[in-house]
Amino acid sequence: MFFGSLLIKALLSDVTEREQSIVPFSPLLLPFYSPFTPKIIMKKAILTLSAVILATLGTQAQQALFGGSSIVSPEIHPDNTVTFRLYAPKAVSVKVSGDFLPEQLIDTPQGKWAVSVPADLKEGKDGVWEYTTPEPLEANYYCYNFVVDGQKQLDLQNVFVNRDVKTLTNYFIITREAGDQGDLFSVNDVPHGTVRKCWYDSPSLGMKRRLTVYTPAGYETSSKKYPVFYLLHGSGGDEEAWYTQGRVTQVLDNLIATGKAEPMIVVMTNGNAYETSAPGEQAGGFRQPEMVMGGVKPGMKEAAFELSFPDVRRYVEKNFRTINDKRHRAIAGLSMGSFHSEHISKYYAGEYGYIGLFSGASAGDGRRGKDEPGGSPVYANFDKQMANLFAPKNRPYLYYVAIGKTDFLKQGNDGFLRYMDEKGYPYTYRETEGGHIWRNWRTYFIEFTQKIFK
Amino acid sequence: MFFGSLLIKALLSDVTEREQSIVPFSPLLLPFYSPFTPKIIMKKAILTLSAVILATLGTQAQQALFGGSSIVSPEIHPDNTVTFRLYAPKAVSVKVSGDFLPEQLIDTPQGKWAVSVPADLKEGKDGVWEYTTPEPLEANYYCYNFVVDGQKQLDLQNVFVNRDVKTLTNYFIITREAGDQGDLFSVNDVPHGTVRKCWYDSPSLGMKRRLTVYTPAGYETSSKKYPVFYLLHGSGGDEEAWYTQGRVTQVLDNLIATGKAEPMIVVMTNGNAYETSAPGEQAGGFRQPEMVMGGVKPGMKEAAFELSFPDVRRYVEKNFRTINDKRHRAIAGLSMGSFHSEHISKYYAGEYGYIGLFSGASAGDGRRGKDEPGGSPVYANFDKQMANLFAPKNRPYLYYVAIGKTDFLKQGNDGFLRYMDEKGYPYTYRETEGGHIWRNWRTYFIEFTQKIFK
Repeated sequence: MFFGSLLIKALLSDVTEREQSIVPFSPLLLPFYSPFTPKIIMKKAILTLSAVILATLGTQAQQALFGGSSIVSPEIHPDNTVTFRLYAPKAVSVKVSGDFLPEQLIDTPQGKWAVSVPADLKEGKDGVWEYTTPEPLEANYYCYNFVVDGQKQLDLQNVFVNRDVKTLTNYFIITREAGDQGDLFSVNDVPHGTVRKCWYDSPSLGMKRRLTVYTPAGYETSSKKYPVFYLLHGSGGDEEAWYTQGRVTQVLDNLIATGKAEPMIVVMTNGNAYETSAPGEQAGGFRQPEMVMGGVKPGMKEAAFELSFPDVRRYVEKNFRTINDKRHRAIAGLSMGSFHSEHISKYYAGEYGYIGLFSGASAGDGRRGKDEPGGSPVYANFDKQMANLFAPKNRPYLYYVAIGKTDFLKQGNDGFLRYMDEKGYPYTYRETEGGHIWRNWRTYFIEFTQKIFK
Repeated sequence: MFFGSLLIKALLSDVTEREQSIVPFSPLLLPFYSPFTPKIIMKKAILTLSAVILATLGTQAQQALFGGSSIVSPEIHPDNTVTFRLYAPKAVSVKVSGDFLPEQLIDTPQGKWAVSVPADLKEGKDGVWEYTTPEPLEANYYCYNFVVDGQKQLDLQNVFVNRDVKTLTNYFIITREAGDQGDLFSVNDVPHGTVRKCWYDSPSLGMKRRLTVYTPAGYETSSKKYPVFYLLHGSGGDEEAWYTQGRVTQVLDNLIATGKAEPMIVVMTNGNAYETSAPGEQAGGFRQPEMVMGGVKPGMKEAAFELSFPDVRRYVEKNFRTINDKRHRAIAGLSMGSFHSEHISKYYAGEYGYIGLFSGASAGDGRRGKDEPGGSPVYANFDKQMANLFAPKNRPYLYYVAIGKTDFLKQGNDGFLRYMDEKGYPYTYRETEGGHIWRNWRTYFIEFTQKIFK
């Protein structure tokens, strides 16, 4: 921890792109930088040696004392092209896979599927492989990883890693100008809200469960009441997903500061009714998250999460200063969270004034109107519930449906829109490029958030 | 996200240790698990193929839709031996480096240094390398990474990764019985506190800065006031360090629930006076953290953090229900945070009733009593300040000093203890095995927390 880079400098001589001043090692001197400390000017040293020794020592030499070598990756150039680098002297092939790369359609048993095509890094001197995007990247939040001789690897030069259930990926953000998406995803010099990780009691599910709650700047020191936006993750997520991958706190701080969104409380639930919380925060011992087979999670057919939703509401309305009416309550979600939002909003018709279905798992194939399998009252009588939702007394102010053109749920979503059209229920539709991806969900969140509570 | 593992099952056939029921792919059917859905029984399939294709597709195929292959790593066996596995068919050498491995002393320009010795994995069939610890591991939180042909890699089968400035490592927790350290680091079925990420204004440093604050279970719904413990990180850390690597929320939930610690508010600051917050949460754009050379950070010689500490106190005492006296205020830190705690507690003598110096950066070489370089009033007149701190009106109830036997700061710490002895200042001393490592800091935190506010 402390003195880390110093130790490594003293011990190994690291590569450096610039001259550095090095203090001779003495724990007793270290808290103080003295102008009398002799400077040692270092030039480029031996990368191979230091990298190998660093790697061999691992990160447990007096606990992660060093920050790795000085390879920069990703390097975002002033023109917003990006260079990726990996030191891999023994590799035969190094690729980068990322959501900024061109997509191609591949054949799957389920038809055409859009995937990004990994790009090849070229080996340069000293075993450092490199790839630079041919074009500047648009302002956004991007994910990537390396593929070395066929094996996925993270870019360990980049400490920014997100987790999507069991999958880790690196990420970076491109900002081009104030107000663009990259800027919205960044921390700016604006008033900041608070994020809480808290626990509520769910008698319906028989467990304590974890929530992420954003409160806007000024919440703590005012006595004001606020509208509440319930924001639900997809099947691969948990109560961390919108906070980490969705950059919700940054987006809201920025939108609220510029007057584009109303100050609001955002409640990010865990929609997996069989678990208490995100991996690492789960009761009952420390274990790896399991991918639930088939996309159908325990409790789903019984609509366990939807039926437990009043437990969330009870906690939030007791513990936060909320305005408790339809005009000041919104619900939206992505994928499975869209499915949950669709059913919660109609089953508890009239409670949510703003409803957002992002890349929705909506059935839209004409089965609507029949009872769904599972037997839950939440899924029964779809037609009747929808008619009730759109009755004048319950009708939402906004029913927002959004999906990507190559989303594998697009066809089902089209069917859902036909259903809405046939019934004459009003909605706002947003179609974007791309598929079932976070880039779209962040975009929909940004748009939806600016349309609610107004 | 949604339907992730299903897609992979349908697309690639993955390896599975057990039989799994697979739903035929249809987005429209997916939200419902039907008893009529045919089951496909899968046996072990082709690992190599799936792993390679998975890796090549990367994680951007409709955004991280799959959870990786079914290699289990680390596998914690019932007897608490642990097996590590890595699929690396082209590798010549695979090692694991971890803080559970035996240490050896290596020569450095600064004398003997204890480092753990990486262990060799052996290649088995199908390109899967494996290592099992020869002995069961004690209950604890452990860190590790792989070293493949000399290059550090994370274990991507294990989603648990922590960040220490620029260094990422995997971690896992071993629990043997209730109340042991592994159990304290785990989420148990006890009342849970809330963790807040919030921002305070620091006029002294001219910036808004981020804090992590733990409030105990029941805080939100009571009107009770609580004691406050200020907990400071080391030079390699930030306001996330104690929360992530220190497992502070889990430890406190567990200690408070069993009556071993008093309900308290814990405030985890960012001690790097030149920055607002942790990487990824920093104002002024998205950038990689820099390792500050020499262990001496900007503002350190001016004691900028110590002098700005009243800004933290002002925010906390205004925004939380705190008891504002010496009896109900503690401060402790690790390494640089120990140095900060030492100086804050004597410069603001009489304000902190409980002071903890963990692996302290204390100077104890006899320079005490002279003015330190830097010129800050915080560091001047050490003897006088210490005498004032231990004057009857200011004297702390607990002055806790702890360090590991092989910590490279041990000699300086010994000198500091001699100084305390010469002056007759009372303190509690704790010496553990091991060096300048988080395992020790978690132990000291657990001990210290049980001694305060009583």
